[in-house]
Formats: sequence, C-alpha cells, structure tokens
Amino acid sequence: MTCDFLALAVPGVQKLSPYVPGKPVDELARELDLDPAGIVKLASNENPLGPGTKALEAIRSELTELTRYPDGNGFALKAALAARYGVDLAQVTLGNGSNDILDLVARAYLAPGLNAVFSQYAFAVYPISTQAVGAEGRAVPARDYGHDLDAMLAAIDANTRVVFLANPNNPTGTWFGPAALEAFLAKVPESVLVVLDEAYIEYAEGDELPDGLDYLARYPNLLVSRTFSKAYGLAALRVGYAISSPAIADVLNRVRQPFNVNSLALAAACAALDDTDYLARSRQLNDAGMAQLETGLAELGLAWIPSKGNFIAVDFARDTAAINQALLREGVIVRPVAGYGMPHFLRVSIGLAAENARFLEALTKVLRS
Amino acid sequence: MTCDFLALAVPGVQKLSPYVPGKPVDELARELDLDPAGIVKLASNENPLGPGTKALEAIRSELTELTRYPDGNGFALKAALAARYGVDLAQVTLGNGSNDILDLVARAYLAPGLNAVFSQYAFAVYPISTQAVGAEGRAVPARDYGHDLDAMLAAIDANTRVVFLANPNNPTGTWFGPAALEAFLAKVPESVLVVLDEAYIEYAEGDELPDGLDYLARYPNLLVSRTFSKAYGLAALRVGYAISSPAIADVLNRVRQPFNVNSLALAAACAALDDTDYLARSRQLNDAGMAQLETGLAELGLAWIPSKGNFIAVDFARDTAAINQALLREGVIVRPVAGYGMPHFLRVSIGLAAENARFLEALTKVLRS
Repeated sequence: MTCDFLALAVPGVQKLSPYVPGKPVDELARELDLDPAGIVKLASNENPLGPGTKALEAIRSELTELTRYPDGNGFALKAALAARYGVDLAQVTLGNGSNDILDLVARAYLAPGLNAVFSQYAFAVYPISTQAVGAEGRAVPARDYGHDLDAMLAAIDANTRVVFLANPNNPTGTWFGPAALEAFLAKVPESVLVVLDEAYIEYAEGDELPDGLDYLARYPNLLVSRTFSKAYGLAALRVGYAISSPAIADVLNRVRQPFNVNSLALAAACAALDDTDYLARSRQLNDAGMAQLETGLAELGLAWIPSKGNFIAVDFARDTAAINQALLREGVIVRPVAGYGMPHFLRVSIGLAAENARFLEALTKVLRS
Repeated sequence: MTCDFLALAVPGVQKLSPYVPGKPVDELARELDLDPAGIVKLASNENPLGPGTKALEAIRSELTELTRYPDGNGFALKAALAARYGVDLAQVTLGNGSNDILDLVARAYLAPGLNAVFSQYAFAVYPISTQAVGAEGRAVPARDYGHDLDAMLAAIDANTRVVFLANPNNPTGTWFGPAALEAFLAKVPESVLVVLDEAYIEYAEGDELPDGLDYLARYPNLLVSRTFSKAYGLAALRVGYAISSPAIADVLNRVRQPFNVNSLALAAACAALDDTDYLARSRQLNDAGMAQLETGLAELGLAWIPSKGNFIAVDFARDTAAINQALLREGVIVRPVAGYGMPHFLRVSIGLAAENARFLEALTKVLRS
C-alpha cells in the first residue's frame, strides 16, 4: 500500500485550492483550434503598451551574466526604490512579484490559531497565503463591492496578526480615500500588521486615493506592497516590493529565498523605475481605454463597478459562464470572477483601443445571439 | 511605544539566520576599490562557460511578451522535462530555482513538532527551510564529510516527515553510489518523503552515482530535485524542478506561487534542455578544471575532499579567515565554509583554465607571504 501524501501534508496545505490564473492565449488556441494571433487577452490586468525600451535595453545588457547568480540583496534596485521614495534601504523587501511579498507576510506572521482579516471580493492571494500556513482567513462582507473598513476593524480580535487592504482593489476596482485610511490606521491595534496592497496605485495617482508611503512614518505596523507587473509593464518578470518599518523588512528578508528575484528582473525593474515616459503613457492609455469601455458598456445597457484600476468588473445581472464561453469562441479572453463570489460579473482588463473595440464588438455579438 | 515585529513573528522565523550568498563581484569592487574586470569569482558554483547561444536566442524571442504574465502552469517546460525523462507531466513541479522546491517541501510537509533529517555539512537551505516553518532540523554527523546513510536512517523517528539527501553534496562534493541509495530507500518508512537533491548530477553523469529518476517508480516517497543553475548555466534565471509521484507534485503545486518561474526563465530553460552541446562542454570544462586544480593544490601540499561537483573543498588544516581575506585583496573570491562548521576549508568553484590559474597563483602568493 502506498502512503497518502496529501493526507501527510500539513493541514493548511491539504485544504488549499490553487490560484486560477487568466487563461493563456496559447492554451485557448490549443483548446479551440484558433489562431493565437487573432486572440485578444483582456484577462490578467496586463499592460497593453508592450515592453518599454528602457527595460528591454537593461535586459539585453544583463544577458552576459546569465550564468551568474543574481545579487541576493538586490542592492541596485533597493537603492533606486529607496532614493525614489525617500526611504531607507533597510525598509525595502523585494519579492518575486508582490504575490511573494504577500506570501512572506503570511509565513512570517500567521500560523494555526492566528487570523488575517481581508475584504470579501479582495485579491485571491490573501486567503490562499493565509490558508497555506494554516491560519484563519476572515473575509469581511464588502460594502458596495468595496472594503467596509469599519466592519474590518470590528473583525480584528486578539488573534489577528495581519489585515490585508487593497487600494484600488482587484477584482472590483473599488477604492477608499485618505481620510478613511487614516481613520482605519489610527484604530488598528499597533500589533496588527496592515498590508496595504497598492498594485494598481500608479493608475490612480493624483486622484483622491492616499499614497500609502505617506503613512509609514506614523504607523510602524504599516507595510505598503507594490509591483512592476502592472503600470510598469513587467508582468513576465515577477518583481514586487514592500516598503515598511525596518523591523518588518528584516523579518521578511529572513524568510525570503536568497535569490527570489532574478537578474533580468532586477535589471529591468531598475530601468522601468526610471522610464517616466512609459509610466505616463500607461496611465494615459488606461484612462482613454476606461472611457472607451464605459461608453461601449453604457451603449449596451450594462452596468459596472466604477474602477481606479486597469480593469473593470462588468455586471451582467445573470450568471456569466455562458457569456464567457461565447466570448472565448470569439477569441476574446476576459476573466470570470465566480471564484470571487461574483458569478454575475466578468472582469475585463483595459487593452489597446483596438482590443477594447474588439471586445465590445464580440460582446455585442454574443449578447444579441 | 512601538511593537516588536520580530517578537511578533512566528517562532521558527524569529530564529532564522538568512542564507549568506557568495560575495558579488561588484560588492568586492566597491569594498576594496578594485577593478571589477580584474576580479575572479569562484564562489558560487556558477558555470564559467558563459551563456549558451540557444538560451540567449530563446530569451530574445520571448522579450516581446514582457508585459504578459508567465504561463502559470509552465506547460512547455514541464512537457519538455516529462518527454526528456519519460515521466508524466503530473510528476513535475517547477521552482524558482531548486531552492524554491526545497522550500515548498518544507512548507507542505513540515511544521512545529515534526522534523527533517539531513547530513552535517549539507546544503544550508535544508536547515533554513526547516527552521522557517518551525520544524526541528536533525543534522546527522557526517562520515568522511559525506552522508552517513545508516546514521541518517537511525535518526528517523515517528515525527520525521522529510529526509534531505544531496548527491553529490554541496559544499563537500561527496557522493554515494546506487547500492547505498537503494539500501537507504528500502529501509526508509514509506511515509517519509526522501528529497534527493541532484543539483550537481550533470557533472557526474556516467560516474558511479545513481540516477535518482531510476528509483521513482519503486519509491513513491522519493522526490528528485534538479536545477538549471549549474551545468545548464542559468543561475541568473532561477529555474529548478522536482520529479516525484503525482500525489507529491499535486501538493507542492498547491503551495507554489502561481507565477513562481518567470517567462524568460521558462523559455531559456526549454532551450537549455535541448542544448546538449553546451551541457557536454560544461562537463568537459569541469573535468579539465578539476584536474588542473587538483594538480595545483597537490603542488602546494594542500589536501582536499574528492568532489563530483563543479567545486572543491580545500583543506588548509587551520582557520581560513585570514587566507580568504588575503585572496579577496588579490581580487579572488572563493567561498568560506565556516558557516557550515568547516572553518579549515575554503570551497573553490571550478572556473575557466585562466581563472583556475589565477586562483592558484593568488593562493601561492598568499600562502608564501
């Protein structure tokens, strides 16, 4: 008889359901025998601009060093981030995507008997990372699909070690303002680590959203998590980072795998951070694309959740599984969010003007058929 | 008063000392004001051949996809590995380096109250990953710097969930043969996961070492871990993999971060797996370099541990801290292994003929001064 290696796993891991990523173009092409070149993917909140020239140049220069290990300390990127944001090098933790940052927080601060608080409809990695270490995940009912910060405060108890906030939130695009964040931070027990996930913040800069970094000096229990995967256009490379008090960064760096961010990713992220033109164009394209989609959706009589991200959750007021399948047959990949408890919605990433138009056309056809 | 975020971390993490990587060339250049171009680094068991052309081509082709997430399932690379080794796709787990594989095993199968068995002088990540999840690490005294497999068997008890074996072992280069492995596997309780770390196996192919994959069919509790960082020359990119029974792979894939291996790494690894010429040249260069170093060390009257890896642990019969410092001043970086309990040794990676010569010259100068 063979042993059951699922039953032998630690309890948290046994109950784990893996994250379901957006369907890759190649996979859809294989499944439905479609031409990959004709497929439009608006499923993973990827930057439609394509690679930035500075990032590409940085990668090409680094190719000579392929046989060498990355700098395990990520000195150059940490120094660049510290300089950009006026923080100390010791406040920065680099992650293999910000997913890695969220996972490091869970590994460092959560365990069976402890809990993490997050919002209903929040990013799937919060419950997954919490579950993986056997801690309890407390999903607090949302208000208008966004964070109900008062209810989240009320959900904190003596065993809460971490609160995950997302601003803007994925997959809903909802957000909260500076006064709400300030009031929340002022009331959270100082022993509770507040993870403020700002993966999409660059799309909302200058809007009424708070900049999490402004609160670090006053709240040593705050950690701001960001990524190069969205507005900086480096999703393929997996670079995220946290800025926090040095004490928290020290702990996360102990758990971090020594070479968690690879050399090409480090080089590209340094270059992308300097590419203010790319960032500005990303923002501009996103604003225009959001307006284009909102107009098109309104013409179709559809509702949506107002969003500050590079995506929009469209409300079809009925189960969307069939609509999603029909869109796939049209070669358009969007993201079903039934797994988030939103079976009536589809999340659509903002693409290029032509991609957005292609989606609206396909949707029109599907809804009329 | 501010909370102590080290004291708030889970107990295993609090006691964690991070892995100490080989000193990067840039760091030494900064510290000692040396010309980076004149520095020889033989400290991290990196492939001295430089990047392979097939891997470089694959990366360049993939650069158009920089803004897209990697294939979270790593379909192409898993399929290539499965075909190469005659295993099923469901037996493969991809890691962000084999470090990630070791970490996934610890997270999935170890917890406070459980233990992992490994050898004294074995790879530092075994105790670190074990400690990070709060489990007990049992370092079994080595025999002639190698694994004492009988003593390791004796160290297994009812709370042992994992045994880490390395063949060849880093940092000692020691190895064991097929009969020893077979005898060990036959006696290990079937509920104990045996991780056979073969990071350096490509340097020993055709020698008297077992191929771990040959034992998978008979031992569903065996996991073979390998890497593209050494003989395949992709240390910068972080790609490792495990081959095991599907049940173990399923569990590891639940814990794995969805995009743990990045797109350029996936593409390069696929290409490297096909580059049999690069692999053959790596092996040839290593054999020649090992002979060159052994001859040089013998001329200096030094002893070493016979090694099947791409490195050699040199025995100076006295504390090597001063020798290491003197070598650094000569612009030669090797690896001190005092952290492994081997303060009389320095580990030297096999380099190009000129690099090996440069090391031997510097060493001669240092020992005579």
